Amino acid sequence: MKAEIIAVGSELLTPDRLDTNSLFLTEELNKLGIEVVRKTIVGDNRELLAEAFRDALERVPLILASGGLGPTEDDLTRETVAELLHRKLILNEAILKYIEGRFRQLGREMPGVNVRQAMVPEGAEVLDNPRGSAPGLWLEDKGRCVALLPGPPRELKPMYQEQVLPRLEKRRSGVRMFHRELRVAGMGESALEQRIKPIYTRYPGVHTTILAAPGEIQIHLRTWTDDAMQAQQTLDEIVQSFELALTDRIYSKDGSSMEEVIAQLLRTNQATISAAESCTGGLLAERLTSIAGSSSYFLGGVVCYSNDLKTSWASVPAELIQSKGAVSSEVAKALADGIRRSVGSTLGVGITGIAGPGGGSEEKPVGTVHIALSHAGGVKERGVRFPGDREAVRWHASQLALDMVRLHFLYNGGEPPTEGAKRS
Amino acid sequence: MKAEIIAVGSELLTPDRLDTNSLFLTEELNKLGIEVVRKTIVGDNRELLAEAFRDALERVPLILASGGLGPTEDDLTRETVAELLHRKLILNEAILKYIEGRFRQLGREMPGVNVRQAMVPEGAEVLDNPRGSAPGLWLEDKGRCVALLPGPPRELKPMYQEQVLPRLEKRRSGVRMFHRELRVAGMGESALEQRIKPIYTRYPGVHTTILAAPGEIQIHLRTWTDDAMQAQQTLDEIVQSFELALTDRIYSKDGSSMEEVIAQLLRTNQATISAAESCTGGLLAERLTSIAGSSSYFLGGVVCYSNDLKTSWASVPAELIQSKGAVSSEVAKALADGIRRSVGSTLGVGITGIAGPGGGSEEKPVGTVHIALSHAGGVKERGVRFPGDREAVRWHASQLALDMVRLHFLYNGGEPPTEGAKRS
Repeated sequence: MKAEIIAVGSELLTPDRLDTNSLFLTEELNKLGIEVVRKTIVGDNRELLAEAFRDALERVPLILASGGLGPTEDDLTRETVAELLHRKLILNEAILKYIEGRFRQLGREMPGVNVRQAMVPEGAEVLDNPRGSAPGLWLEDKGRCVALLPGPPRELKPMYQEQVLPRLEKRRSGVRMFHRELRVAGMGESALEQRIKPIYTRYPGVHTTILAAPGEIQIHLRTWTDDAMQAQQTLDEIVQSFELALTDRIYSKDGSSMEEVIAQLLRTNQATISAAESCTGGLLAERLTSIAGSSSYFLGGVVCYSNDLKTSWASVPAELIQSKGAVSSEVAKALADGIRRSVGSTLGVGITGIAGPGGGSEEKPVGTVHIALSHAGGVKERGVRFPGDREAVRWHASQLALDMVRLHFLYNGGEPPTEGAKRS
Repeated sequence: MKAEIIAVGSELLTPDRLDTNSLFLTEELNKLGIEVVRKTIVGDNRELLAEAFRDALERVPLILASGGLGPTEDDLTRETVAELLHRKLILNEAILKYIEGRFRQLGREMPGVNVRQAMVPEGAEVLDNPRGSAPGLWLEDKGRCVALLPGPPRELKPMYQEQVLPRLEKRRSGVRMFHRELRVAGMGESALEQRIKPIYTRYPGVHTTILAAPGEIQIHLRTWTDDAMQAQQTLDEIVQSFELALTDRIYSKDGSSMEEVIAQLLRTNQATISAAESCTGGLLAERLTSIAGSSSYFLGGVVCYSNDLKTSWASVPAELIQSKGAVSSEVAKALADGIRRSVGSTLGVGITGIAGPGGGSEEKPVGTVHIALSHAGGVKERGVRFPGDREAVRWHASQLALDMVRLHFLYNGGEPPTEGAKRS
């Protein structure tokens, strides 16, 4: 089954407000195997509103709309949908009494305008709203269903759960959505596409979405079917083929974030970690400590922007900085070694680089970063030039640092095989 | 003039992603007096995409679309719009060379799929994308304009500013939007509303939006007119009244972020700063160093999760931690003092608290945070209990720390007057 979501309200067409109800509604509909194929956001304008509903009614059997059920002249959803479905609006005495009662409870008299909220299109089912004055409406017409819900999330969510969901469950077919998410680090979007396209194009029944963000790519696989076993088997098969194609570049197969994966690896290996950061300015420490309970593996970190602090906090010899430069493979290694020894952690990470926009040179352009990982058996180092602005460079650098920790555990402290570690 | 925004991408129809580009685009269009009358979000589906563009082309003279310009099979915007406007797709050699060059700079060969990004509909103007591989496109057809922009905000925004805006300015009418933005810290939404509602309700021609986020509130004032002088005068008047009502709670009147305001204050006062963080885990350092050129005032910071590191890096006496507890006013002060002396900076900030979800007690519940600011003349401290989850508590704490730095400079190192400092 396919559905559309229509969000009504001129405030949603300003630079300040987004329709967030649709995330909740999409998640709920997906659970039932219902796919959202379009979202439309329209203002409080009768003509445009009518057009949005009319078009959607032609396309899909289910529409969930939010907003425009208030008492004011601006609130046009009720009237528009009634007119479109050729239904008369009839005063519902029960709703009127309920609204009057709500105002009485607040010690106020019901303003005349609120009568509008008690008008119900002929044949519509009323969805009670114990958290507000605007009731919702459920309409059926030639096999199509339309739910009109109030805009405020704290009214919409319980109304969906208590009154829309049961109605949808009655209608639902055996078809459900099956979903897998893979996350990949250390690889560009095009290179990834080239490796996995020959695989996913063999499965036209599975929808593949590739989402690229700085330093990581998400691959979503979704399929809709009533045959759960077949779906799981197909998805397993694709995931296995992806694993062969992407090898150690896949860092998560269950939607876990990089931070969560690293937390899990450190815990499982009873390892601790510390960090000495220059250009990332605390971002690595912040990401490591964003996970609840991180104090069990993160002991501490230093942000040593100045050369003096690199020496005093991470024991980087001043002569080394002098001879090799603060942004160098050698200083990254010394930072990693120094912080690990000073803190007494299993692992130590050192990062030094030029996040920009200033500070670059021909030899060491903006984006140049050296990242080192020190462990009892030695120290690994990677020198990279990241693209993008200050924020992107810092994020990339923190992501690669975390990925080096991941690969360290994946290969038991050894080096990854050449193919797998090759960045493409 | 009216416009519609179309956001393309199946990921925007999942429970995970919202189209945020439309906020930026709406703001920019509004500035030119162009009203956004509809936003449509469609997936990577040729038929639905074509329908969305076809309908929009019938309704409005301007369409801004984002997404679907990538190199993969999923990316259909280019092809769909070309077909709809009956334009052939032609390989653009200059774009191809540019994309190949980008890959070469990163030491990689251009994958074959990227050729798609060099295909341009006949008669379209190419919008260069120095920040990514997908160029944008500008098409005119029977008096209607269509701009196809890349999805990533860091590519879309500069492309709009540099290449779409000048094209729109040529076409615009005399009515423009005038906008002011105030940012407020250390105050709740209801308290703020109570203080400023009597003011803004006196100006029905000005649209006021109040947006609350953890630790800060934005107030937007917008008015549309062709009388620039009158608009500026009215907005000035409202801002002055807001300043009287909110006093030192306003930290920015030009849209600057808290990080930018602090950077400016530190630079102007030729002051330097250091930080010793526990529960914020590096977030304060990360925020301070997110500004380009921050090395001129940020010397360094430590993230001392363990008690031992509080002692060795920030000279907090072990007995003090023992007797008062790691989360205490005394330890916050000692952290601030210790890091300031150790680093030799003008200011030192110390933060200790319980970000949760674990670690709380009846006496010190989750959300308890102590923040101290040390300077040559002494040390200020605030103990607060923040609401929300781990992320919110950490953010709130970093925000209050920055706000304490701001107030320190605002009152020349002295205490703020009682009224202004009162949190409500």
